[in-house]
Amino acid sequence: MSDRPKIRLCVDQPLGAGQTVDLSRDHANYLFNVMRLGPGAEVALFNGRDGEWRGRVAAAGKRGGSLVCEGQTAPLMLPPDLWLLFAPIKKARTDFIVEKATEMGVARILPVQTEFTNSERIRQDRLQAHAVEAAEQCGGTFVPEVCDLQRLETVLADWPEGRRLILCDEGRAGRSATLPELVAAEAAREGQGAGWAILIGPEGGFSQAERARLHALPFVVPIALGPRILRADTAAVAALTLFQTSLGDWT
Amino acid sequence: MSDRPKIRLCVDQPLGAGQTVDLSRDHANYLFNVMRLGPGAEVALFNGRDGEWRGRVAAAGKRGGSLVCEGQTAPLMLPPDLWLLFAPIKKARTDFIVEKATEMGVARILPVQTEFTNSERIRQDRLQAHAVEAAEQCGGTFVPEVCDLQRLETVLADWPEGRRLILCDEGRAGRSATLPELVAAEAAREGQGAGWAILIGPEGGFSQAERARLHALPFVVPIALGPRILRADTAAVAALTLFQTSLGDWT
Repeated sequence: MSDRPKIRLCVDQPLGAGQTVDLSRDHANYLFNVMRLGPGAEVALFNGRDGEWRGRVAAAGKRGGSLVCEGQTAPLMLPPDLWLLFAPIKKARTDFIVEKATEMGVARILPVQTEFTNSERIRQDRLQAHAVEAAEQCGGTFVPEVCDLQRLETVLADWPEGRRLILCDEGRAGRSATLPELVAAEAAREGQGAGWAILIGPEGGFSQAERARLHALPFVVPIALGPRILRADTAAVAALTLFQTSLGDWT
Repeated sequence: MSDRPKIRLCVDQPLGAGQTVDLSRDHANYLFNVMRLGPGAEVALFNGRDGEWRGRVAAAGKRGGSLVCEGQTAPLMLPPDLWLLFAPIKKARTDFIVEKATEMGVARILPVQTEFTNSERIRQDRLQAHAVEAAEQCGGTFVPEVCDLQRLETVLADWPEGRRLILCDEGRAGRSATLPELVAAEAAREGQGAGWAILIGPEGGFSQAERARLHALPFVVPIALGPRILRADTAAVAALTLFQTSLGDWT
């Protein structure tokens, strides 16, 4: 681990032995002006498909440059087939949720609009860029796809066959699954491998109609997140931790 | 739950049936100018000792006012005897760690200075105010104490007898305890009830000397937090989730 280059870049080009990787203007600026690298310097490269490669700077210019791939330093590590659905909140916290979901390991991030969600739109491109940065930072070799904002009812209407939805519903009293129950449910489940999703409720809670609809859906598994009410970004990390340690890639 | 007042205030006065609670200028401004409450309105009150009480506004003024306690709406719920130690990082993330630790449920928050910690000082009063706000927000009836910044080596030298320290050391490869092992260790442990602590490593990692010292200490239990490197605030929530679901108050 210690001999892997410290600077990591997610690039949109094929990676393989001897492959030349042309740099975008932004990446060239970052490597050569901000980080002051020169020819011969090493950078870790990944693209979400080919694992992580050691790239060596071949040409360094003000507006561009190139690296050559020398060898693979880590294989591609895909996250579990897990989606995170959440209702966008204040900008900083929405950014944090995308960052944390990437670090924790999800395949796809779906911002959803609920009845009590204020946001009418999100900057999908900006959130996707946050996911890229988080993947560069956390040593991952995969970048989750950030989808555009959709209405929760649309997402539920098109729900893929077999995929389970773990519902974190802070405002709800009563019966929720515990972690061992979740694992047991998965072990007993037919059509395994259809994946999972986690839905974090909006800060204002679900409406009565939404809550009734969600709890009536056969693929929904409600879970409890302790006796205090968690903010959405806290709840996202807590729920992802429970998933990763029971059904995901932390085992 | 639904008939508990929505506005919650942490006050520094005794609470009990018929007790009059005088408001600070800040609280009076918040209730009467910002939230526009008037006499007769209901507010949930807690002080970290007496549980949550329904307070009714008796007098509302520009610079002060008072409430009268009518009845207890929730008992005092103490968190587990768990401390969170972390190395302060950038301001926003330090604030987030204090907020999240309060939501997740800890008894005490100890900012510690490690060899690779940049911060020489923290604003303890500001961080304590963040903990109060988080407790008001999350429905808790307890506010963790935020300590002033201390050197990690000082904290370790004065370590209380019997308290276990869970070490989240992101940069470390090799053997770490899993959750079931942690639970088994606790069940087998002598002198139970001496409490726990969680130490989140600094973003730059521990120094070699710190790491060697920590791993040699008999009360340290290293745990793993998955295959990706988590930022300090993410790691704090993940580690607290693991603790709360195995040894804490989420069970």
